Amino acid sequence: MEPSNKTIQIEWQPLGLKTESGEDQTLLAAAQKNGLRLAAVCGGNGTCGACKVQRLAGELSPLSETEKEKLTQEEIASGFRLACKAKPLGNVKIHIPKATLLTEQRLQLEGESSLPDISDSARVIQTIDLTITEPTITDHRADSVRLKDALTDSGIANCTIHPALLSTLSDELRLLKWQPRAVLRGNEAVALFSPEIPPLGLAVDIGTTKIAAYLVDLATGQTLGRQGVMNPQIGYGEDVVSRIAYANATPDGRETLQHALIAALNTLIETLCEECGMAPKQIVESVVVCNTAIHHFFCNLPVRQLGKYPFIAAVSESLNLPATSFGLCTAAGAAVFIPECVAGYVGADHLAMLIGSGIYRTNNTMIAVDIGTNTEISLFHQGSVYCCSCASGPAFEGAHISCGMRASAGAIERLRISGKKSHYQTIGNQPPVGLCGSGILDAVAALRTSGIINHRGNFDPDFPSVRKTVKNYEYVIADETESASGKAITVTRADINEIILAKSAIRSGLEILMQTAGIQAEALDAFLVAGAFGTFLDVESAVAIGMFPEIPLEKFSQIGNAAGTGARSLLLSSELRKESSRLATRMTYVELSAYPDFNDILVSWMYL
Amino acid sequence: MEPSNKTIQIEWQPLGLKTESGEDQTLLAAAQKNGLRLAAVCGGNGTCGACKVQRLAGELSPLSETEKEKLTQEEIASGFRLACKAKPLGNVKIHIPKATLLTEQRLQLEGESSLPDISDSARVIQTIDLTITEPTITDHRADSVRLKDALTDSGIANCTIHPALLSTLSDELRLLKWQPRAVLRGNEAVALFSPEIPPLGLAVDIGTTKIAAYLVDLATGQTLGRQGVMNPQIGYGEDVVSRIAYANATPDGRETLQHALIAALNTLIETLCEECGMAPKQIVESVVVCNTAIHHFFCNLPVRQLGKYPFIAAVSESLNLPATSFGLCTAAGAAVFIPECVAGYVGADHLAMLIGSGIYRTNNTMIAVDIGTNTEISLFHQGSVYCCSCASGPAFEGAHISCGMRASAGAIERLRISGKKSHYQTIGNQPPVGLCGSGILDAVAALRTSGIINHRGNFDPDFPSVRKTVKNYEYVIADETESASGKAITVTRADINEIILAKSAIRSGLEILMQTAGIQAEALDAFLVAGAFGTFLDVESAVAIGMFPEIPLEKFSQIGNAAGTGARSLLLSSELRKESSRLATRMTYVELSAYPDFNDILVSWMYL
Repeated sequence: MEPSNKTIQIEWQPLGLKTESGEDQTLLAAAQKNGLRLAAVCGGNGTCGACKVQRLAGELSPLSETEKEKLTQEEIASGFRLACKAKPLGNVKIHIPKATLLTEQRLQLEGESSLPDISDSARVIQTIDLTITEPTITDHRADSVRLKDALTDSGIANCTIHPALLSTLSDELRLLKWQPRAVLRGNEAVALFSPEIPPLGLAVDIGTTKIAAYLVDLATGQTLGRQGVMNPQIGYGEDVVSRIAYANATPDGRETLQHALIAALNTLIETLCEECGMAPKQIVESVVVCNTAIHHFFCNLPVRQLGKYPFIAAVSESLNLPATSFGLCTAAGAAVFIPECVAGYVGADHLAMLIGSGIYRTNNTMIAVDIGTNTEISLFHQGSVYCCSCASGPAFEGAHISCGMRASAGAIERLRISGKKSHYQTIGNQPPVGLCGSGILDAVAALRTSGIINHRGNFDPDFPSVRKTVKNYEYVIADETESASGKAITVTRADINEIILAKSAIRSGLEILMQTAGIQAEALDAFLVAGAFGTFLDVESAVAIGMFPEIPLEKFSQIGNAAGTGARSLLLSSELRKESSRLATRMTYVELSAYPDFNDILVSWMYL
Repeated sequence: MEPSNKTIQIEWQPLGLKTESGEDQTLLAAAQKNGLRLAAVCGGNGTCGACKVQRLAGELSPLSETEKEKLTQEEIASGFRLACKAKPLGNVKIHIPKATLLTEQRLQLEGESSLPDISDSARVIQTIDLTITEPTITDHRADSVRLKDALTDSGIANCTIHPALLSTLSDELRLLKWQPRAVLRGNEAVALFSPEIPPLGLAVDIGTTKIAAYLVDLATGQTLGRQGVMNPQIGYGEDVVSRIAYANATPDGRETLQHALIAALNTLIETLCEECGMAPKQIVESVVVCNTAIHHFFCNLPVRQLGKYPFIAAVSESLNLPATSFGLCTAAGAAVFIPECVAGYVGADHLAMLIGSGIYRTNNTMIAVDIGTNTEISLFHQGSVYCCSCASGPAFEGAHISCGMRASAGAIERLRISGKKSHYQTIGNQPPVGLCGSGILDAVAALRTSGIINHRGNFDPDFPSVRKTVKNYEYVIADETESASGKAITVTRADINEIILAKSAIRSGLEILMQTAGIQAEALDAFLVAGAFGTFLDVESAVAIGMFPEIPLEKFSQIGNAAGTGARSLLLSSELRKESSRLATRMTYVELSAYPDFNDILVSWMYL
């Protein structure tokens, strides 16, 4: 059969992207050619099995031997293939599972995750286009009364006007020729716009390290833009404990930390608005989620008592504050909504994650976990919700790991050891620089699975890539010639210890929550893993090192930045705000350090 | 009978002051010796009849011929005497009617005017001394939740915490050893004090020219101190019209005018608190009353539409705003309450006057008038309230009068003409400098009564003290040798015109309100005159020139600074705040310039 010049169309779901390619090209090659980054740790050799995709329509080349080996019977029956082996025979429609899609596209994807369909009455912000009667010498009603009367006529009972709007009301009514679009928060008018201007919302997830912001059209619910920046408070301490120390020791320390955040948010707002052709004054509502310490910094609340035993939050209720009290450059009548903190170390970001993931509605037995320097876990069981915070440390953010780094270009994010050799994939397909969280997790799991380290984490010195150092042994992933820096990328005994500490902290939290609820891991219907690291980690590796319990892999779901999704939902729906309040009161905080036998449990999980 | 050295005690009511004097001394002399300033226009000759006092107990010298002439039968029967004639024969108790007592003492007196007796539930601010449970490792409630739980246990349902308190709460709870005095506004905690510290309130009456401020103990209702200063906005225009022009023409003009007021209030607060040994941060509540234009300046509201036809207020509803939004140096959780404006030229100060005078409760037919550059009048009749504002001009503040001056030392405040000579009394008994409002009013009335001017205001050139000037005639009250300045103090034809314009404006307003209500002056049960000028003017003179209707003099009451009293009541009682809202909605504003035949009515009152 002679080679044809037939052009084949591939439709990639759920991105909705259509690409064209020639015959005799694998799905992986076609994806790469079009900038779609699929997980392909082995470089397309069929050894890693990471590039699983699902055929939705059209014909693919027959199943290869490699695929028969790497895919389960069930997967094969469901149309799963390895993208590095399967070739389209005609136009096809391919579904890329979340786990297979990497970085940019995955981030883009999670942004599209469905936002709630909200009835008008449940909207936090609504707009009404008004026609208002002009004053005369015999109709002396004040401008504020005119506006209220018009709103009452439009069916808004007991309406009020935001104080900040009062100072511009008269001029705006006349400028808009008495035909304004009134922007309402509940029954309170907060802004007057020209009728063609949409009201905007800002959802912000402030992490200890990173800030993610989303600009949302409050009329349509559509996300118009998103931006991420580093949390500038890093200049005052890498973790919240050192920032609390800074705030307590420095005159105006709290103000300094707050202003750093506000300045960053204002820059984010301006950038986002410019990108989307909008104005910051169109933003009438914001939702901010973060952990309890960052929450206290953002609101300039006292942190002295939060930083020391018994670690008490100043405020745990949801807050609804004027944006002007923060100095945000949004509309004068804009508000900032901040959901409840559950406890000193379980913050509004975790609550937003539970809302964003939809788990709050479940009647099943489910766990949701958000891994970070502090790992928050919630267990839903028979209507009860148990939560805790584990001091898992910064190892999965690449800190305290000899070759650790943040998840940026050149970081090894996937690793397998097959035969005597390690195969890895770096972010941006750059030459390797170091190991990010998912890379070091994979590395430790692969070392254990391959028998290179034992259950205590000690090396088998006879393995080819293991070499002796001054203190101990280390495993060489990329030697001096292969590494971009000229310095070998290795896993040391100390690195393994860090991972053991982190995973045992997380596993102990999981076990104690399950003990508290009186269940075994087998009872779990689902296990959600959220957040940046949680989205990129390899669940199999996490199970392999004992960080997650051994339950069927299909019970795990990696749900992306659900806290951001939750924040955007809370921006739109007052019903969901009530839900999140109800959820916060339903949650039972379990203080791990006060749990009987906590230390014994912790130690018992310090094996691989 | 030989002169005795017997010492006689006089108790002066309602001041509660006790003085001692020798025998054979008139009550007037005894009063003057002790710094009590009684009205005594004629200098104690028994010709003016102004120094009426009432015997409450003890014996006085027999009734003199002068007294029989100057006092009515009814007054004599009630124990009234002239202080310049009556001498105590032993220890006596004397009541000084308001109209007889001048300046300082009178101002002091009005401060004592009874404030409402308020039930605990009607208090705007209440305090509760709490004992709060300290946190432990197993009791993780946030500090805010601890405070709320303690308040709930004390019977405060659905309590909330003021956002400003949140930022100090944790440190204060620990500083106060978990035993704070919680200061509550309704069910909202606004401050935490040490249990011995009383919460304070500030009542402010901002006039176009003067600001009066009162510091009130909110626990006892007692007025601790009072202070008056000039309104610093005078630097931007003497009247509100020129200040509105300034605000519109100048960049940041509104801000400049607002900041001038705030700076003056902050100085007042600091002075008052220092005087009373209190701290500004104890002030948790303020009430501000003023006319509509000053109200708009104070709140930084737009005034463009207020300054031009048809003169529309931006906002007329009552406002309840955080003190921090004004930059006041009071407690972080303090609020500022500003009652309703009734119309563009009937402000919250008039409403506060109606509350302070108690007239709002009446079922009778009554008028209450507050004379100033704008004179506000309210007529209560059969459950309806009609109100208007008259452009009476600044003549009664001494402006636009050739020898006019403010009511300060050396101003002629009372004047009578008997025989061919004028007798006068000056403020502080200083040599005469000029005429204040009540002096010019007396002068015009006396000139007319003596036939020196006719009903058009034209001089009889043959009267001894009438002399010709370049333009017209003038009446000499104090010639060049008598006047403190060496410049004669006179009343000119132009001065008389100013007074005619002012009184016809006021009388027209009174007549139109009565026409609107369908009543005659005879139907009036009472006629209240409020404010500084209203308190010091001679009602007989006001009736004589036709400014007030000819009704029996005893129907008039001069009620002092009722707006200040009203503001202090609104500081204490949430019931009265509701009353003032109900009153504002009951009031029908009558726009005089839109009234049929307004100009004819105005002209018809331009005769003396």
